[in-house]
Amino acid sequence: MSLVVVGSVALDTVETVMGTRERVLGGAACFFSVAAAELTDVKLVGVVGDDFPEEHEQTLASRGVDMAGLQRSPGRTFHWHGRYSEDYSSRESLATELGVFAGFSPDLPVAFRAARTLFLANIHPELQADVCRQMDDPRLIGCDTMDFWINGEPKALARTLSMVHLLTINDEEARLLSGEHNLVRAAQGIMAMGPRHLVIKRGEHGALLFSGDEVFALPALPLETVVDPTGAGDTFAGGMLGWLDSVQEVDGPALRRGVAYGIAAASFNVAHFSLEGLLAADREAFERRMERLRELVRF
Amino acid sequence: MSLVVVGSVALDTVETVMGTRERVLGGAACFFSVAAAELTDVKLVGVVGDDFPEEHEQTLASRGVDMAGLQRSPGRTFHWHGRYSEDYSSRESLATELGVFAGFSPDLPVAFRAARTLFLANIHPELQADVCRQMDDPRLIGCDTMDFWINGEPKALARTLSMVHLLTINDEEARLLSGEHNLVRAAQGIMAMGPRHLVIKRGEHGALLFSGDEVFALPALPLETVVDPTGAGDTFAGGMLGWLDSVQEVDGPALRRGVAYGIAAASFNVAHFSLEGLLAADREAFERRMERLRELVRF
Repeated sequence: MSLVVVGSVALDTVETVMGTRERVLGGAACFFSVAAAELTDVKLVGVVGDDFPEEHEQTLASRGVDMAGLQRSPGRTFHWHGRYSEDYSSRESLATELGVFAGFSPDLPVAFRAARTLFLANIHPELQADVCRQMDDPRLIGCDTMDFWINGEPKALARTLSMVHLLTINDEEARLLSGEHNLVRAAQGIMAMGPRHLVIKRGEHGALLFSGDEVFALPALPLETVVDPTGAGDTFAGGMLGWLDSVQEVDGPALRRGVAYGIAAASFNVAHFSLEGLLAADREAFERRMERLRELVRF
Repeated sequence: MSLVVVGSVALDTVETVMGTRERVLGGAACFFSVAAAELTDVKLVGVVGDDFPEEHEQTLASRGVDMAGLQRSPGRTFHWHGRYSEDYSSRESLATELGVFAGFSPDLPVAFRAARTLFLANIHPELQADVCRQMDDPRLIGCDTMDFWINGEPKALARTLSMVHLLTINDEEARLLSGEHNLVRAAQGIMAMGPRHLVIKRGEHGALLFSGDEVFALPALPLETVVDPTGAGDTFAGGMLGWLDSVQEVDGPALRRGVAYGIAAASFNVAHFSLEGLLAADREAFERRMERLRELVRF
């Protein structure tokens, strides 16, 4: 079992009512990797500039993430600067400096290409399709995207969607992609575009899974303290794909449990800045959180 | 076992993308009663004008609702006219004509006063408190309210909250009442005001239950077709209180199941105009919907 993730590696400056952190480790591929690495073997593909601290690479490696696919390019690492509203209901991007990420051209190490599972974090859909072609024969391809590509690159995105098995997007993205406000009908429309399985992420409301005729919904754990929601969706995907890769199954029970692992992982992430909450959570902590989720919905 | 509900009886004109219905049966007490009557004996207290069609009273009575507490006053029945946005994400009140409801002074028939369970639908908190005083010794008092009373009658509402056991409000009302955006902290603040149990209704996202240290969350059933969400919250409360009255328990398992019955009832309501969906659902349909809810969250 092994899982390749391709996506951004970033330095984030985050301002919330709980404090500010400057140029801390972020990026979709990092949140995903650290969540998934508690459950399976993860190989990261991304790019950083020459300002990227060595210690961050060591942090990821110490979690067991294979960093052989991390390119170092002359220039600056992708930097995002965001500010959350006091109640976390909205956020403002104060700066999005792509740096070396603007020229990112994923090149998978040969040793990565046989991986069973692939996750395409939110990058240009043409790059996502290119990565699919570099892989030998992945059994499960997961994918994320965003409004920018749905609006700006619909044809490229359609090609990518025809190649992937599982799409993880949020409710507004699902509505935009399908042109349907009702999420059941939105899901039907999106699954007709290619993905056999669809997860609609709903933030504090949890997640919805559609797979064939099966529908699964799980609320998020109500948390007394939210510190930094950055990366929650990528963390969710990491927990879910990490589980699916570890069990080598994509049937209904595995998908449902995967959603639960995703929600468990996200609950660690949002309670701390950057990757702090995830890095402090070991497998035992994941399993305890899974028990809390079972208890949450038991009736 | 018997359950008294006090609240509005209305004639609603509703416009949605699925059509328009003029002066159809509505009002919190009606939605509540029809949902609860599938599970227990319900007694309704409300007021209508001399324009209220006799057939509506028969409809409620035929469901088993005891209508001895329905006052008929000279004048017009409460009339609400609303229009939902195309995607149901918002609604506009085009008219709110209180009519005889403006002078509503609940007067409980003697035969109602020994009821074990009482539900105070959304009316002036002073009237809610007055109804509590008319009852002999109810074992469970549930209550709803709205932003209008939270903002306009905070002292009266505080007195009422000190008398009730279970409050059912939506997330925005919980935030307004507690002054806390985070729902876990909002719940702690509200339970300190009196209610031992709190349900936060989240519309299409389901409901959250807080009771002591216990937290329960259940998503709503994803529905392919929503026709008319009017009365969904009252229907929820009817399903929940109806169940609690029928089992004569208010412990954790009963409360959790009550929330599930509430969500099941609301799922019938929103798929049709007025009370049509609820009236078509028998006990067997309720139990099948409960099974679907169990399947929805099984992992």
